[in-house]
Amino acid sequence: MTATDPLVIFTPSGKRGRVAAGTTVLDAARALGVDLDSVCGGRGICSRCQVAPAFGAFPKHGVTVTEAALSPRNAVEDRYDRIRGLAPGRRLGCQAQIRGDVVLDVPPESQVHRQVVRKRAEARAISMDPATRLHYVEVAEPDMHEPSGDLQRLESALAGQWGITGATADLGTLQALQSALRSGDWKVTVAVHRDAPQPRILHVWPGYHDGAIHGLAIDVGSTTIAGHLCDLATGEVVASVGLMNPQIRFGEDLMSRVSYAMLNPGGAAELTAAVRDALDSLAAQAAAEAGIDPALILEAVIVGNPVMLHLVLGIDPTELGQAPFALATADALHLRAGELGLHLHPSARAYVLPCIAGHVGADAAAVALSESPQLSDDLMLVVDVGTNAEILLGNRTRVLACSSPTGPAFEGAQISSGQRAAPGAIERVEIDPVSKEPRFRVIGTEAWSDDPAFPPDTRITGICGSGIIEAIAEMRLAGLVDASGLIGSAEATGTDRCVPQGRTHAYRLHGDILVTQGDVRAIQLAKSALYAGARLLMDAFGTDSVDRIVLAGAFGAHISPKHAMILGMIPDCDLARVSSAGNAAGTGARIALLNLAARREVEALVRGIHKVETAIEPRFQEHFVAANAIPHATAPFPHLPRLPDVAFNLGEGRRRRR
Amino acid sequence: MTATDPLVIFTPSGKRGRVAAGTTVLDAARALGVDLDSVCGGRGICSRCQVAPAFGAFPKHGVTVTEAALSPRNAVEDRYDRIRGLAPGRRLGCQAQIRGDVVLDVPPESQVHRQVVRKRAEARAISMDPATRLHYVEVAEPDMHEPSGDLQRLESALAGQWGITGATADLGTLQALQSALRSGDWKVTVAVHRDAPQPRILHVWPGYHDGAIHGLAIDVGSTTIAGHLCDLATGEVVASVGLMNPQIRFGEDLMSRVSYAMLNPGGAAELTAAVRDALDSLAAQAAAEAGIDPALILEAVIVGNPVMLHLVLGIDPTELGQAPFALATADALHLRAGELGLHLHPSARAYVLPCIAGHVGADAAAVALSESPQLSDDLMLVVDVGTNAEILLGNRTRVLACSSPTGPAFEGAQISSGQRAAPGAIERVEIDPVSKEPRFRVIGTEAWSDDPAFPPDTRITGICGSGIIEAIAEMRLAGLVDASGLIGSAEATGTDRCVPQGRTHAYRLHGDILVTQGDVRAIQLAKSALYAGARLLMDAFGTDSVDRIVLAGAFGAHISPKHAMILGMIPDCDLARVSSAGNAAGTGARIALLNLAARREVEALVRGIHKVETAIEPRFQEHFVAANAIPHATAPFPHLPRLPDVAFNLGEGRRRRR
Repeated sequence: MTATDPLVIFTPSGKRGRVAAGTTVLDAARALGVDLDSVCGGRGICSRCQVAPAFGAFPKHGVTVTEAALSPRNAVEDRYDRIRGLAPGRRLGCQAQIRGDVVLDVPPESQVHRQVVRKRAEARAISMDPATRLHYVEVAEPDMHEPSGDLQRLESALAGQWGITGATADLGTLQALQSALRSGDWKVTVAVHRDAPQPRILHVWPGYHDGAIHGLAIDVGSTTIAGHLCDLATGEVVASVGLMNPQIRFGEDLMSRVSYAMLNPGGAAELTAAVRDALDSLAAQAAAEAGIDPALILEAVIVGNPVMLHLVLGIDPTELGQAPFALATADALHLRAGELGLHLHPSARAYVLPCIAGHVGADAAAVALSESPQLSDDLMLVVDVGTNAEILLGNRTRVLACSSPTGPAFEGAQISSGQRAAPGAIERVEIDPVSKEPRFRVIGTEAWSDDPAFPPDTRITGICGSGIIEAIAEMRLAGLVDASGLIGSAEATGTDRCVPQGRTHAYRLHGDILVTQGDVRAIQLAKSALYAGARLLMDAFGTDSVDRIVLAGAFGAHISPKHAMILGMIPDCDLARVSSAGNAAGTGARIALLNLAARREVEALVRGIHKVETAIEPRFQEHFVAANAIPHATAPFPHLPRLPDVAFNLGEGRRRRR
Repeated sequence: MTATDPLVIFTPSGKRGRVAAGTTVLDAARALGVDLDSVCGGRGICSRCQVAPAFGAFPKHGVTVTEAALSPRNAVEDRYDRIRGLAPGRRLGCQAQIRGDVVLDVPPESQVHRQVVRKRAEARAISMDPATRLHYVEVAEPDMHEPSGDLQRLESALAGQWGITGATADLGTLQALQSALRSGDWKVTVAVHRDAPQPRILHVWPGYHDGAIHGLAIDVGSTTIAGHLCDLATGEVVASVGLMNPQIRFGEDLMSRVSYAMLNPGGAAELTAAVRDALDSLAAQAAAEAGIDPALILEAVIVGNPVMLHLVLGIDPTELGQAPFALATADALHLRAGELGLHLHPSARAYVLPCIAGHVGADAAAVALSESPQLSDDLMLVVDVGTNAEILLGNRTRVLACSSPTGPAFEGAQISSGQRAAPGAIERVEIDPVSKEPRFRVIGTEAWSDDPAFPPDTRITGICGSGIIEAIAEMRLAGLVDASGLIGSAEATGTDRCVPQGRTHAYRLHGDILVTQGDVRAIQLAKSALYAGARLLMDAFGTDSVDRIVLAGAFGAHISPKHAMILGMIPDCDLARVSSAGNAAGTGARIALLNLAARREVEALVRGIHKVETAIEPRFQEHFVAANAIPHATAPFPHLPRLPDVAFNLGEGRRRRR
């Protein structure tokens, strides 16, 4: 190019260069390495390459752009505008030719690798580069004199027009290929899955396929199963669904399910059938919610703890129930979704994230991918709270991981009035330290319970995980619970909300909804396990403090950091540096769904994570016992609010009952 | 090594070299590149590395071998001998250590790449190197402190002990992995399939698996389906089965089946179900005949014409019924056998050979692999006779191929007394030129019909393909049929075996078994098509003669070259240079089953073959018409016996009936 050729400047990338007059905007973008999308390969069909030219003087760029900088709108653009509508000021990059110096903005929706915005400021954005993408191709017609297969000519077209070499196709795709090519007059849109071991053509649509294709990111928890259905072009979550893991009927925690598999012939197969059915319902529900055909779901990404993954894969989890906790496979798996009983597209693929160890699964790997402690300068503690807590500790130098059997109390199970987080559940609690009266918030209602706007007919059905944590922490702050976890009597606390219950007392939160001594004990066990796991990693890292804490988990988003710290769930930390990551495992699954490179990244990351096995570490037991009190004795808590210096005893209750 | 180290000489390879005293025979063989088998990797378990040391003076080799040349038989060999028996003079190569100069014979059964002998002198041997082989490995036990999956440790063992890297496993294999590893005490035998796209562990047996594994080579013909079940270690054919293609009820030739698929909704699926059922029965029959569990069949290799393959693959063959005869895929396919409805091992693989063109299929590719015209100095014509004839013509310089629609007459169909080659069928015919009396041979009976040893109660049920060819050729030689193909009357021929039948005559071969005028016409059509195809290739090659002819096909082995030439089925050739190859397509499938490199070879070979499309070539029609007479006019036949100069006319019959 010479200095007399037009200068083209793309925003927001700032990439610039001179191109020969007459070059299309799309070709210019490709030549300059600008991220401008195209599904149809520049044929004026897909409109993905839209750009917005800017006219006028741009002293910053040193150019003045006139209307003559681009060729006038042509017939292809007029036709496109007539049929589908082209927003004012927009041009099709494959049609508009550069004739003079020009500044062109590439709007986010025209970028292939657009960023999917994540809500939290500290979270890294997801750069779109899904394993499965659409490509429009024109395929050579068969020639009797140079015989070749339709598939081979499609493969050549993919190689020549999109640089995708070595593609293969499932038998199902091959069975439908010939009619699609002919009804599309040798122009087809193909969905190509680019992951290992080789690119694979999943579907062939005649002509240009204008619809979206989808992927499903699934986090299989012991108690809840969550799914995010995503548009594979935009990254948009078009449906989020959650359901209870039906395996709960075989046991609430992981080890009881492993025991079920060990003790009952065919038990593992029953557990597999239950969880596969649930995954398939989840997919159907997500598709229904988004209003799409499940056959348009072309890919699933699955994370979960090792026991859940083994069961989803149809592998007996017995080995995970006993030392040395050997995984059948630690590596990521590339499967057909149908092999797992998922009724998505018949050729849909399933990618299962790798596991870190026998007790630290693909869910922890997904949390690591989402929260990226390995990229952090600060020492980060990431706690994924569930029936098992996955805990990561690390920074740029190294990352450690463990899991801790917290049990289902944090998810509202094993709590007298517990329930899962759903409308009607108390999720926030405050107790006045003087009057000892509570106020609370209920899922589905904006106002607090003491607000005049609180509807008197609000259905209040129970208390969920975040509610019970806040309730007990607030009881401790209000002097209703002592450091050992005992609830005081009405006499000792001065409120008749403390009611006797057997040999112990309970705090009446609302109507029949009590916080019982058993509830406090269940939360104490869970929080001790959680804390002991975190502490064990800190010992292994050689640190007494962490810079930053991320609370994750299906319900981690709802835990109040202050209350978690009052209870001693987490180590001491500046509360301003404790954040919630929501379902980070699910987010990690979504990242792997939307970005192919993230799969290789998590596979490498997992190999580098050092695993600490809580089940055989004597220090775990020590930390666990020492962490039982509120606050507990194993660490100083400089950031903790001052707690009332009360002490109750069981005698109070006994005395009163006499 | 120094000149004082022992000299070891292996026979029959003649490989020799010095090794350090104390080296095992197996290690010496590996160091010297000698082909010595081992499944257990030198652990004294498999006995595949047996050698036979030779003692005494060997002036030819310049050594004298004493008993001290090898270490004495050790405890492992004693134990092996006690339990399984070690033939006298044999040693286990992994146990015997070399202590002095020695000559060691590697018997054929100890060679990995042993040659499978083929019956015909001119056929190249099959060198054993099957895609699926057994390997014994010792797998590291899991370590809680360095967690890894069982599969990853098995993969490491395969890489470290056998150099097989990047292996993967199906979900089914993974599901059974953990219990196999533990019940084998971390020693297992794995069947590994090494073909594209990556090595795959098909099965894991605890401990050392002493049994054989099998593969099935299948040739799917329009009329008959043939299968050879092979031992994947020895190459031995342990069962050969054949059955009629049940699709015959939808039409006898390919085009009538394509029409059925085109005209009947769901017709293609019916055809697919029929042929898949037949393949599965074939596999079950072969396993039953060999007395093995079908689950020990780990691989299938499938060849067939394009229409048959499309239907086996579940692809509508409509496109193959009309120009430009586009294949869905021309390339070879790597599938799971289960995808084709085959109930073999659940992880069994299926390899489908590539097609040459829309009318020239994987059966022709397999014939090319078996007969290897591309390696021939002579110009070879290979004719695979079936309902479609696949024809190859070529030598080292180039190979041409076409197919010709001969119809099922050569297989005994569309013949008045026709039947498939089975006990009771007349397969050989001679007619005395003076008395015009026939003698014949019947399948299942050694003696000719005029032999006193011919059992008078022999069941004679019909006439098969080779029988009708000989009968008509002999009728021509005896002056019962003229050059135009007309059968003469009793008056004209002087034998009352020529009986009137409507307006024409028939020759009474035996009892009710007649050779009718319709039979002669059917064979004339078939042979004209066959000849025209061969002639078209000769035109394209620019030759009037060929050096050598190979007759192949399920029944090709039984065709008498002389009679084929009298009929004008094949071009003129020195009869000594016309040979039968039997089911060459099935042999090609067997080669691909037993030798991995042969798959890459046939894939490359197919790309290099030039295809001639008979269906659109006007010269085909010309050759076809000109080839109708016996002998026909399109070529001189210097090697043809002198034929009687007779001429009949239809009037004879008409006159007699009046």
